Amino acid sequence: MEPGSRAAAPGGVSVSAVLPAGGSGERLGGATPKQFCAVQGRPLVSYAVRAMERISWISDIIVVVSPENIETMKTIIEKYGHKKVTVVEGGITRHRSIFNGLKVFAENEFSSHLLQKPEVVIIHDAVRPFVEEDIVSKVVMAAKEHGAAGAIRPLVSTVIAASADGCLDHSLERARYRASEMPQAFLFDVIYGAYQQCTDYDLDYGTECLHLALKYCKTNAKLVEGTADLWKVTYKRDLCAAESIIKDNLSQQVCVITNVKETLAQVGFLLPESLKSQIKVETISVSLRKNDSHLQNIISGQCYNFVCVNDKRCAIQEVQALVGMLEKSNIPLLYPVVLISVHLDVSENNSFSIGMEDLTTIKKFARETKKKNILVYGLLIQCK
Amino acid sequence: MEPGSRAAAPGGVSVSAVLPAGGSGERLGGATPKQFCAVQGRPLVSYAVRAMERISWISDIIVVVSPENIETMKTIIEKYGHKKVTVVEGGITRHRSIFNGLKVFAENEFSSHLLQKPEVVIIHDAVRPFVEEDIVSKVVMAAKEHGAAGAIRPLVSTVIAASADGCLDHSLERARYRASEMPQAFLFDVIYGAYQQCTDYDLDYGTECLHLALKYCKTNAKLVEGTADLWKVTYKRDLCAAESIIKDNLSQQVCVITNVKETLAQVGFLLPESLKSQIKVETISVSLRKNDSHLQNIISGQCYNFVCVNDKRCAIQEVQALVGMLEKSNIPLLYPVVLISVHLDVSENNSFSIGMEDLTTIKKFARETKKKNILVYGLLIQCK
Repeated sequence: MEPGSRAAAPGGVSVSAVLPAGGSGERLGGATPKQFCAVQGRPLVSYAVRAMERISWISDIIVVVSPENIETMKTIIEKYGHKKVTVVEGGITRHRSIFNGLKVFAENEFSSHLLQKPEVVIIHDAVRPFVEEDIVSKVVMAAKEHGAAGAIRPLVSTVIAASADGCLDHSLERARYRASEMPQAFLFDVIYGAYQQCTDYDLDYGTECLHLALKYCKTNAKLVEGTADLWKVTYKRDLCAAESIIKDNLSQQVCVITNVKETLAQVGFLLPESLKSQIKVETISVSLRKNDSHLQNIISGQCYNFVCVNDKRCAIQEVQALVGMLEKSNIPLLYPVVLISVHLDVSENNSFSIGMEDLTTIKKFARETKKKNILVYGLLIQCK
Repeated sequence: MEPGSRAAAPGGVSVSAVLPAGGSGERLGGATPKQFCAVQGRPLVSYAVRAMERISWISDIIVVVSPENIETMKTIIEKYGHKKVTVVEGGITRHRSIFNGLKVFAENEFSSHLLQKPEVVIIHDAVRPFVEEDIVSKVVMAAKEHGAAGAIRPLVSTVIAASADGCLDHSLERARYRASEMPQAFLFDVIYGAYQQCTDYDLDYGTECLHLALKYCKTNAKLVEGTADLWKVTYKRDLCAAESIIKDNLSQQVCVITNVKETLAQVGFLLPESLKSQIKVETISVSLRKNDSHLQNIISGQCYNFVCVNDKRCAIQEVQALVGMLEKSNIPLLYPVVLISVHLDVSENNSFSIGMEDLTTIKKFARETKKKNILVYGLLIQCK
């Protein structure tokens, strides 16, 4: 899909998202609220934002943060090039923050211009970094039909009720209950109506949006089975767990792209051969400056690692062309992409200067693309 | 405390433990059941076993495994030098496995000799590797008084009940409910009585021991707030989370022990100075072959890293003496201990041979101590 174009949402409804990110992260045991903790160098909230922004049919993403973190959030948006995002000041509780986020679509209180009210609004936590389009699509479809919907998971532990003296009163039959997770989605009028009607007690002590929709709008949410990765990063150990999932998601394939003189074809042959023992390898010979459908297919086939072997001057233009294709694909929004530009220097003189100049250019370029989750490396090889 | 001696249990009762380890680990998504997955090179079940065996007032530890894993479990016990452990064949469900474990104290069915029936029995999961004596002691005390007790944690997600059509029926007020975790403890007669009375349906579909004690013995278990680390390793990501906790538990102190000629005191001085920028350093000068109370205090003060600087022949004996002290302390049962033996060679001849011989001996010795969670390294420095 071309950048800027927008696919129709499931069911053809207009959709926006609200991400409450106002938590203090007390349970994490650190000074930094968990949504701003770095995982593989990137704040957790940035993962959640990019998971939403890569879904083309989501129009606006409202991130609700506490007043002291507004600048931090704006810096993150700029640094990681997030689009579609509006930052809104949160309230003192989760419900008050979500309500503030929703008001951006209905009242002039929080933004200079009212955003277009969506038919369906997604609510998702900033501390749930892994959410696939599939589950978001399912809850949106279900919300359109039922008025409200939410992802659920089986309970890991038995849930028990305590009596006043701290003893077991009764335990719940595990199979009959579920853990309510995120994302959730609502017809905008249902959840906004619920927030407008609900009591201060609800706003201060409640946590469950599905409950508000039921209590105030008589809407029984549809429950959608989610994947295990939807869990909420709560404790310090969860940051390490999140990191392990990101590493698992790294592509286990590499594409070697050669664009070299025939005399050097040997290099282009030996490299894939030696890589094959480590990783799944696809080799193609193509000039990156032309649009190539085979390469497009490779990218959409979950291959996000590239080795570009080149003996031309200005290899940087080839690299830029590939980065351009990758950006259009939206893949780096969710997965880190690795791109190694191997420049074979076959010039007769012994000077490294031209190749080195290229490397310096690539280094500068790499600093820019890193923010977009594309890791570019340059390698200069002299062949005589 | 001397090895072999046994401190009185809380409340003066006799205590043993049953660890169900029969799960198939389906949710982990791997072929190896999670209790046998390695974390930092050691199977998860071994962490749970050693957490129990380091508590001196626990007499017997029954590990219940499925028939196909009995040999694996026996190998683990031998490899990591676990003591007090009896391996019992499990049933097809969790409750049937725990019941089998309890029978070892009451029936002749599973062991050639009946084990001494404890007054209180602890039940703990093999996939909860981090359990401190403090919480075990609290549940045992509470079980003595109330007949049953279990660790609980606040709920992370809202718990909801679904209607037959997969929609929200109602959500539970999160503050009124708790997650039931492990360890749990029971008067032996209460839990054994409950298992003897309970139905096949309970044995096949139930999961909660506290529920059985309530249903069949009218015993309302005392609920004890546990720490966050008590969580159950359930998903693949939890293995990484477990690893991060082990790394966090590594001692952030080092003790430098010098036993060198005065002329070399300079080395003993420079080393701690350069270490101080990295880690908390304590320096003592002592011969390890004598029992030293100051060193004992350092070990019990949570310092598990040692650098032993020596210019004597046969430094290995000093290392062995320190390893002996550490083993007696029971510390390596729970925390990895690092011991670096630095041998300063001040002999006039240029031959490395004597020092190298020492290193070879240390290498062999290190291979043995590694199984006991003591990591020994040798370093030879020639000083002229």
